[in-house]
Amino acid sequence: MAHQTLTEIIGFVAAILTTTAFIPQFLKVWKTRSTKDISMRMYLMLCSGVFLWLVYGLRLRSFPIMLANGVTLILTLAILVLKIRHK
Amino acid sequence: MAHQTLTEIIGFVAAILTTTAFIPQFLKVWKTRSTKDISMRMYLMLCSGVFLWLVYGLRLRSFPIMLANGVTLILTLAILVLKIRHK
Repeated sequence: MAHQTLTEIIGFVAAILTTTAFIPQFLKVWKTRSTKDISMRMYLMLCSGVFLWLVYGLRLRSFPIMLANGVTLILTLAILVLKIRHK
Repeated sequence: MAHQTLTEIIGFVAAILTTTAFIPQFLKVWKTRSTKDISMRMYLMLCSGVFLWLVYGLRLRSFPIMLANGVTLILTLAILVLKIRHK
């Protein structure tokens, strides 16, 4: 397999993992309504950062960056909203 | 300011935010030793994904990707270890 192709596959799997990782955390908080141990500051920083990655992707017209960060922003914002509501 | 320069600044600030976001979560868990609300599955997926981003950066010889993901891997691994130890 070409070096470049393998690199692209690694990047693709990495993007899927770091994006979907927030799904189990969202589901856990959604079910338990308990957010005591979750850091509000982390999710404020993460949502701001992921939003800027989305802007970055839009400016570069990079569809993979837009897609990965768009999905991550929805998930991290949802966790942040649950944290604010159930703190 | 040139379009490209502003785009690079946005990406740089985004990288700093999404990397350092895990510091407050690590400190919270370190102080409280309480990890009940934190999803083990999230940190397993995140550590695997960030590790693959690090490999991706190494293969592309991209220093920014290596640095950001190297730091993130240390922080997310530390949170995962505390989660396993204090679950």
